[in-house]
Amino acid sequence: MDVFPLPLARIGIIGGGQLGRMLAKAAKRLGCTCVILDPTPGSPAGQVAGHQIVGNYHDPAKLRELADSCDVITFDIEDIDTETLIQLEHEGHRIHPSPRVLALIQDKLTQKEALAAAGIPTAPFIAMPEPSPEAFAAFGYPLVQKARRGGYDGRGVSILKSAADYARHLPVPALLERFVPAEKELAVVVARGHDGDCRCYPVVEMVFRPGENVLDLLLAPARIAPETAEAAVALAVRTVETLGGVGIFGVELFLTESGELLVNEVAPRTHNSGHHTIEANVTDQFEQHLRAVVGLPLGTTDQLSPAAMINLLGAPEHRGRPVIKGMGEALAIPGVCLHLYGKAATAPYRKMGHVTVLDPDIALAEHKALQVRELIEISGEDHP
Amino acid sequence: MDVFPLPLARIGIIGGGQLGRMLAKAAKRLGCTCVILDPTPGSPAGQVAGHQIVGNYHDPAKLRELADSCDVITFDIEDIDTETLIQLEHEGHRIHPSPRVLALIQDKLTQKEALAAAGIPTAPFIAMPEPSPEAFAAFGYPLVQKARRGGYDGRGVSILKSAADYARHLPVPALLERFVPAEKELAVVVARGHDGDCRCYPVVEMVFRPGENVLDLLLAPARIAPETAEAAVALAVRTVETLGGVGIFGVELFLTESGELLVNEVAPRTHNSGHHTIEANVTDQFEQHLRAVVGLPLGTTDQLSPAAMINLLGAPEHRGRPVIKGMGEALAIPGVCLHLYGKAATAPYRKMGHVTVLDPDIALAEHKALQVRELIEISGEDHP
Repeated sequence: MDVFPLPLARIGIIGGGQLGRMLAKAAKRLGCTCVILDPTPGSPAGQVAGHQIVGNYHDPAKLRELADSCDVITFDIEDIDTETLIQLEHEGHRIHPSPRVLALIQDKLTQKEALAAAGIPTAPFIAMPEPSPEAFAAFGYPLVQKARRGGYDGRGVSILKSAADYARHLPVPALLERFVPAEKELAVVVARGHDGDCRCYPVVEMVFRPGENVLDLLLAPARIAPETAEAAVALAVRTVETLGGVGIFGVELFLTESGELLVNEVAPRTHNSGHHTIEANVTDQFEQHLRAVVGLPLGTTDQLSPAAMINLLGAPEHRGRPVIKGMGEALAIPGVCLHLYGKAATAPYRKMGHVTVLDPDIALAEHKALQVRELIEISGEDHP
Repeated sequence: MDVFPLPLARIGIIGGGQLGRMLAKAAKRLGCTCVILDPTPGSPAGQVAGHQIVGNYHDPAKLRELADSCDVITFDIEDIDTETLIQLEHEGHRIHPSPRVLALIQDKLTQKEALAAAGIPTAPFIAMPEPSPEAFAAFGYPLVQKARRGGYDGRGVSILKSAADYARHLPVPALLERFVPAEKELAVVVARGHDGDCRCYPVVEMVFRPGENVLDLLLAPARIAPETAEAAVALAVRTVETLGGVGIFGVELFLTESGELLVNEVAPRTHNSGHHTIEANVTDQFEQHLRAVVGLPLGTTDQLSPAAMINLLGAPEHRGRPVIKGMGEALAIPGVCLHLYGKAATAPYRKMGHVTVLDPDIALAEHKALQVRELIEISGEDHP
């Protein structure tokens, strides 16, 4: 029989954004305390955790300070100094997912190479250490250029349809991928426990806003054939097992026009495509991540209701203290669940919150989510 | 169109226990900040709110300090100095539910009198300002003696089967109620919005531990006929409309052996019989309360899955830093959702957490909840 004094564990979370915020809430529910490492005082996660070390994710001294004040470390972002983390792990600090897995995944080229080596289907790709028009043309258009490091929320990715688009290329070490005309973009959130036990949430469908590459609308479950869903789950599990590590992984997939499934990329952390699990599933992705990280058994991923999710993004050209319009009207729609992240300032396209809509009819959930997107606007006190 | 700067509102919560903790989480989700008033530093709610005024609920200066630092005040307990609150409301501070409603309800005699005056069916009762064996005998046994003030979680209530039990009476101003042999004890959590809009959660069934009067097991929905459920909801709404006020109210009912519904008592706050709504319902009681208190539209109370809930109580004779046994085994059971309250010390029968079990089959949910109750033990480092 297991016996733990309470608090169960002190969890260190590198990154104090919305993912850390939702992790901190789940951590407290499970009897843990939290310390956040984030450069912004009063970060979204810090507001809930009650204890924040103000510092940069790349600062070895701050990472060490966090490790020394916690039993287990995890992260809500990928762009961390893994060298220090690997050293800390070597000294006996518990870090999940493992810094070696993080290092492999945070470089999109090594990630892709590892998947290809394991026979995981992906779009064809080549390394592109020094971009040039000739090298791009030799690979052939249309293509997707991805920066090896530091990309997120659409940053670090450029879709180039033809040589005429070369001006929009990223002048950094990158990889080039064949542009895949996808029938749908899918995602599977996979949890991997201490014992290697893998549990998946039902496959979701992601709709991106054209040109912005930021998740626009998510439908859970995806409107795909059951055998496609089954294949997607199997592929996502193979992918996570290839990479290894303990915790939640977001696996993004393309369903091509010919019905093929390709792994697009993997995030070694809780994922935007799992936010709806807070309301729609028995155990949400944040608690699931903590169960894995702390070494507790994984929870049930069953979905209780169809759901649609939209991100609430800061309005273009608006900055400063956020102002929300249409919140009351949106909350009057049955099934609307609002999550605001407590960010002190908005910025164009910044993720300020999200809305999950539950409805027994997924088409209605989608309709309501689009209604909410029309109703709610997050502007800022500083604007032209 | 509604427009709010963020944070939307600063919510003051009088009482920093588990209800305040769950309220604070919901408040942050809705873009609010929180200040807690509680005498214990690092209270369960204070740990999540990030801002606590350490002070007593009866201290007028502390209540005023809270009011001055918040836009709206609410509470997670009933035993508050209402005189100060009434004065603060008079001065223009927003307090929900209204202190007048709180004053009426916190005195179990005036509560009962108000219900009786409105024709709400209750067990027969009389005022008992000065307990005496003669007066008890004149009312007749079996009876229930309830202290007018300050009772909660089984304290302040004594069930006396016969004159021989008189030694167990409470030597305080009280009321006497006829003991009603109940077929079932039911509860309805009712939300009343700013505009008087009332929404109810499905009726739940409460099982109490014999002799302890602390909620032992809750089943949602109650296993009763649909017409009984409908009548219970209608009676609960009439009860809340009789008392007035804005926010969540927990209405406890008896279903007598003859099929009659009687109102037992009302709590002007979020209620132990609504904890399962966090996982099982679209909008949980804590968010619902805040929506009401802030003046936002009420959310959907639909239940997504049958649920069973148990409280995790501190073991008898144990005090000090809590130690939890069987948590890992319990979490391995599918559908088990654990909530620990972060209390620094345990005490006999103290509410240290709760577990909600979701299962499509309510009999299985109940079975699993009873399994969890066997598995989890919360002891303390100080014990004989």
